[in-house]
Amino acid sequence: MALQQLTAQRLFEGWQKRFSHRSKTLQCDMQFSVYLPPQAEFHQVPALYWLSGLTCTDENFSAKSGAQRIAAELGIALIIPDTSPRGEGVPDAADGAYDLGLGAGFYVNATQAPWQQHYQMYDYITQELPKLCQANLPLTAQKSISGHSMGGHGALVIALREPELFCAVSAFAPIANPVQCDWGKKAFSAYLGEDQCNWDVYDASLLMTKLGSQLPMLVSQGEADQFMATQLFPEQLRQAAEASGTPLQLEIHPGYDHSYYFIASFIEQHLRFHAGYLLNNPLVE
Amino acid sequence: MALQQLTAQRLFEGWQKRFSHRSKTLQCDMQFSVYLPPQAEFHQVPALYWLSGLTCTDENFSAKSGAQRIAAELGIALIIPDTSPRGEGVPDAADGAYDLGLGAGFYVNATQAPWQQHYQMYDYITQELPKLCQANLPLTAQKSISGHSMGGHGALVIALREPELFCAVSAFAPIANPVQCDWGKKAFSAYLGEDQCNWDVYDASLLMTKLGSQLPMLVSQGEADQFMATQLFPEQLRQAAEASGTPLQLEIHPGYDHSYYFIASFIEQHLRFHAGYLLNNPLVE
Repeated sequence: MALQQLTAQRLFEGWQKRFSHRSKTLQCDMQFSVYLPPQAEFHQVPALYWLSGLTCTDENFSAKSGAQRIAAELGIALIIPDTSPRGEGVPDAADGAYDLGLGAGFYVNATQAPWQQHYQMYDYITQELPKLCQANLPLTAQKSISGHSMGGHGALVIALREPELFCAVSAFAPIANPVQCDWGKKAFSAYLGEDQCNWDVYDASLLMTKLGSQLPMLVSQGEADQFMATQLFPEQLRQAAEASGTPLQLEIHPGYDHSYYFIASFIEQHLRFHAGYLLNNPLVE
Repeated sequence: MALQQLTAQRLFEGWQKRFSHRSKTLQCDMQFSVYLPPQAEFHQVPALYWLSGLTCTDENFSAKSGAQRIAAELGIALIIPDTSPRGEGVPDAADGAYDLGLGAGFYVNATQAPWQQHYQMYDYITQELPKLCQANLPLTAQKSISGHSMGGHGALVIALREPELFCAVSAFAPIANPVQCDWGKKAFSAYLGEDQCNWDVYDASLLMTKLGSQLPMLVSQGEADQFMATQLFPEQLRQAAEASGTPLQLEIHPGYDHSYYFIASFIEQHLRFHAGYLLNNPLVE
């Protein structure tokens, strides 16, 4: 069996499950979480992929977002991967920093030593994990993607680069212009090398300016977010959307910070946004 | 100022706050969490006190229950205390066990050394904390109480012993007959001594059999709860309610376990239950 079920817990009449599997892409054992809504006992359901931020595993969003309540109502599965490869032999930042290595894969395919053997999170999220889930879980082929902070960056980059994979994209407080901020510069230098030409394909603002997109796109940002001015740069994304004619729905929420309390407050809006495309627009295979 | 505000985070248009204060009852510095719904900016609101279970602090319920969404809609504050005294000089279990000492105050007034100086959680919850909150936060005098596991035990015991303090009580998977289970026997022996006559005033099933109650009372229990048969004994509570004519609403939910996923699934029902008494039955002072 490709998937080993580690836990199954009843939640809003559906099931919160945790799985382990051997990842060929990442060359390590990986764990991820899934919420299957009650409807999945009777028919296949579409899936929202959620990419978490720095320091997270698959468990933070599962425990703190409250997303499963709405997913249960709407009949949408949630697929929640880890944020980096893990386990013995997987390199970490030499100084144990939170923003490089374990918990900080940045959803790129690393090209530099010592990272390139395991840190292939872009391919894991776009290829291996969806194939694995669709082969082993009661899912339709319809998918959308969302994420928070580093995961918001991942969701936007993936959706901009591969618009055929997901029918909608959203993000909470994404790192919207990573080539310009310290988090992005540090991670991209390590994973992709010093030549900044290789960074641009992982920068949502640069990709959007160049490619544009007609994908439904919702971004929420807390105005009291302690990282907004130094790491996130939502204004760059807004300008990229204007320049490229991308229909970005960018909402700034006064008083909200960078935490899961911000996500919890607006996840219902995001799930209903995704449901409009996941449920009304079935992909015929 | 009696209360020092540690953090304030926007959540569902209200505020999640954390406070520190010197507790005279517990003779140590204590922290607790509060959710103030948006209505509290305009007028005083009633409060639900939430007592957490073994190993928890005030942060578990705050982060995982999703209760604030419904509290924001209904206009109810949430007061979330810690589960034991804390800090330097406060004794812990000699072997660091999770079910005695720090994180395991069991909401009793300890009479035995070395516990009796600090472990006065019953008085802290019923007297010092409500006075402190009502003097410093925008609260009406209307209060109700709920809790989980050890905290469900605490909520039921307090409501049965002091029915004038709270207008309704509910519990998730409470330790319903602690004098009969290992968790209760261990804690009560340590805190109250070997004479079991001193234990009965902290046992919800025994109190209910003896005193009965006309307080609105809702108890939810997961049928797949790994502790139901060995530690919780909901059947004893049901029998006590029958014997005493107490209108207990006891609901058994197939498939649900002892975790916060169970609480998250049914907290909305509990909050609407409390709201029926907190909001329609104003206490005139």
